[in-house]
Amino acid sequence: MTKPSKTKAIAVLTDFGLEDSYVGIMKGVMATINPNIPIIDLTHKIAPQQIWAARFCLMNAYPYFPRDTVFLAVVDPGVGSKRRSVAIKCSQGYLVGPDNGLFSGILAEDTALKAVSLTNTDYWRIPDPSLTFHGRDIFAPVAAYLASGVALEALGESIPINSLVAFPLEFPQVTQKKIEGSIQYIDHFGNLITNISSLLVRDKNWSIKVDDKVIKSGLTYSDVAPREMITLIGSHGWVEIAMNGGNAQEELDLEWGSDITVIFQF
Amino acid sequence: MTKPSKTKAIAVLTDFGLEDSYVGIMKGVMATINPNIPIIDLTHKIAPQQIWAARFCLMNAYPYFPRDTVFLAVVDPGVGSKRRSVAIKCSQGYLVGPDNGLFSGILAEDTALKAVSLTNTDYWRIPDPSLTFHGRDIFAPVAAYLASGVALEALGESIPINSLVAFPLEFPQVTQKKIEGSIQYIDHFGNLITNISSLLVRDKNWSIKVDDKVIKSGLTYSDVAPREMITLIGSHGWVEIAMNGGNAQEELDLEWGSDITVIFQF
Amino acid sequence: MTKPSKTKAIAVLTDFGLEDSYVGIMKGVMATINPNIPIIDLTHKIAPQQIWAARFCLMNAYPYFPRDTVFLAVVDPGVGSKRRSVAIKCSQGYLVGPDNGLFSGILAEDTALKAVSLTNTDYWRIPDPSLTFHGRDIFAPVAAYLASGVALEALGESIPINSLVAFPLEFPQVTQKKIEGSIQYIDHFGNLITNISSLLVRDKNWSIKVDDKVIKSGLTYSDVAPREMITLIGSHGWVEIAMNGGNAQEELDLEWGSDITVIFQF
Repeated sequence: MTKPSKTKAIAVLTDFGLEDSYVGIMKGVMATINPNIPIIDLTHKIAPQQIWAARFCLMNAYPYFPRDTVFLAVVDPGVGSKRRSVAIKCSQGYLVGPDNGLFSGILAEDTALKAVSLTNTDYWRIPDPSLTFHGRDIFAPVAAYLASGVALEALGESIPINSLVAFPLEFPQVTQKKIEGSIQYIDHFGNLITNISSLLVRDKNWSIKVDDKVIKSGLTYSDVAPREMITLIGSHGWVEIAMNGGNAQEELDLEWGSDITVIFQF
Repeated sequence: MTKPSKTKAIAVLTDFGLEDSYVGIMKGVMATINPNIPIIDLTHKIAPQQIWAARFCLMNAYPYFPRDTVFLAVVDPGVGSKRRSVAIKCSQGYLVGPDNGLFSGILAEDTALKAVSLTNTDYWRIPDPSLTFHGRDIFAPVAAYLASGVALEALGESIPINSLVAFPLEFPQVTQKKIEGSIQYIDHFGNLITNISSLLVRDKNWSIKVDDKVIKSGLTYSDVAPREMITLIGSHGWVEIAMNGGNAQEELDLEWGSDITVIFQF
Repeated sequence: MTKPSKTKAIAVLTDFGLEDSYVGIMKGVMATINPNIPIIDLTHKIAPQQIWAARFCLMNAYPYFPRDTVFLAVVDPGVGSKRRSVAIKCSQGYLVGPDNGLFSGILAEDTALKAVSLTNTDYWRIPDPSLTFHGRDIFAPVAAYLASGVALEALGESIPINSLVAFPLEFPQVTQKKIEGSIQYIDHFGNLITNISSLLVRDKNWSIKVDDKVIKSGLTYSDVAPREMITLIGSHGWVEIAMNGGNAQEELDLEWGSDITVIFQF
């Protein structure tokens, strides 16, 4: 006799916003399948169709969830087109969503073990889904069944892991004297998060140069006076530019993808 | 011996926003009555006192929830005045809130079986409630008791179903050549949702005319090039105007209630 | 044999916003420690680092939660500096967060029984926490352990209750003829909430004077015509200025801390 699987948690990320009932509808669909699934919101305020921002938020949150959590993510500019719908089993958790690169941050940090294309309509809400809301009709029900113990293999045909759409992070250019990187995410506080890993600056004496401005490194926001700029290792493990008690983005007028340079002092 | 009722889920919609602790307070009140009720947020970002938007979001979400879910909705410009507080038992679920037309979208789709005015103060938080926050003192506790198994009839005196305040949808004008309708809701993506049901255009060749602009119909957003306009049947079952990868509202500058025309091609 | 403690609920308030995955990460950390803790959001949209707004929202929500709820609050301009991290046991509930005055509204209404500094790293997520995200590495795990039955005393060394940072409310100036007060909070509807307790105006005939404008008191919003101003006792127990069907803040152009005067009529 097989022991019944324990219910897994589902962590949900979308770009649906909180103004409409779309997110609530997905939760209603999941509760109809299994009312006992713990559901945790990551965020629903990814800017519309910004796969890159979703990629960062998913990667940043992934290590802090219980083992075997199902990450249900729907930022889906290609809904209704031929892009695949996928479920992926990784070493630490499961991923469900469109195959558009959303999960490539997680997949750079954890090992994918198996992937399937969601072709088994038995686990969809209805066999003839809406062409504009796969979150409701495909992804939410599949995540709920997966969280309830259905095997990944049952959800559809196996696909090669190396066929998954990948958005690799643009790597910074590193020399002995400096690192040329860029901004990969800007958070609610206006903190500018670069694509430079903490490993590249550890145990070094470094600053950041933006245009003609030099911003010194420190350990925490209050290492500088109020409304002074600082660069430090953020909680996510990347070099970050912040303003103590203020908004670094507004001060520096940088955007996603803007270039920044780390300079080493000797 | 009567078998104890199973705890029902509560789906919550308000115009309270997420900036203050009002929604949290309603959840605290419900958890104090019964900590085991599953609570699902529909949205709390209905524009202040926009009963019409609430009506749409409730109607749109209703079919996707477990049977017997309690829908607790508080968009309540008449709080503290003589408008009635009601609970309604429908074929598929329960409704709790002010009697101001909020639920008239749901009531156009499901059958109301019984309705009561919430006159039994035993199920209020306190017998002398705040005149400005019935969500906390009347609706949340009543919903929690209903979800916990209290009978609808116990909540107050029976009222005729045809006495409930109704906001019927304005019906479009249909001829053989065209349909004259209007915008009934605009979502977070800027998609413009009309009052024209998919049944009226099914199996036909149709476009939408807005001012001098003709927008062709398709099946899904990616049927047109990026930043092109399209009209299609939305996931909610209404004719919708959208822009692939963009915001149709900003492009067309339409408002709620704006007129649009569907044209048939032969 | 000691009876195992029942799991307590956790109510969460932050200034992290809902755009990023920071709040979701805290919930993932708590679910990893104990997946059965009921978690209720108060708000995450406190303006960045506005301890005063957090103080009001916490105080306003506190009485409506189940006994022994753990209030986890992170509005933390001094993160990584020498400000203490604390847990407090009060008569009705528990408080966990930075010692920066956040909880001083609750502490003005309920009795603190014991307080500890969170020095026991066994209940942190990791002994070497991020210097910028104590919510994830210290406060969320400590709250989860406390909710799961760990004793307050185990969390760190005892500290005197009178050593906690207090932000007392500025008291209004009261005479027989008038009360000079100020705005202590502005909510999502634009209602202006003063620092004048309902006890000071009860059973009196009063109005509010703002510049040259006199606003008469009433019981509920609909006591005046649409788009008329009114002053009344809000659901939180403070004198409030509102506009029926409109936004009092936009109309009067008042800010937090702006002076207002209550006038008595005889």
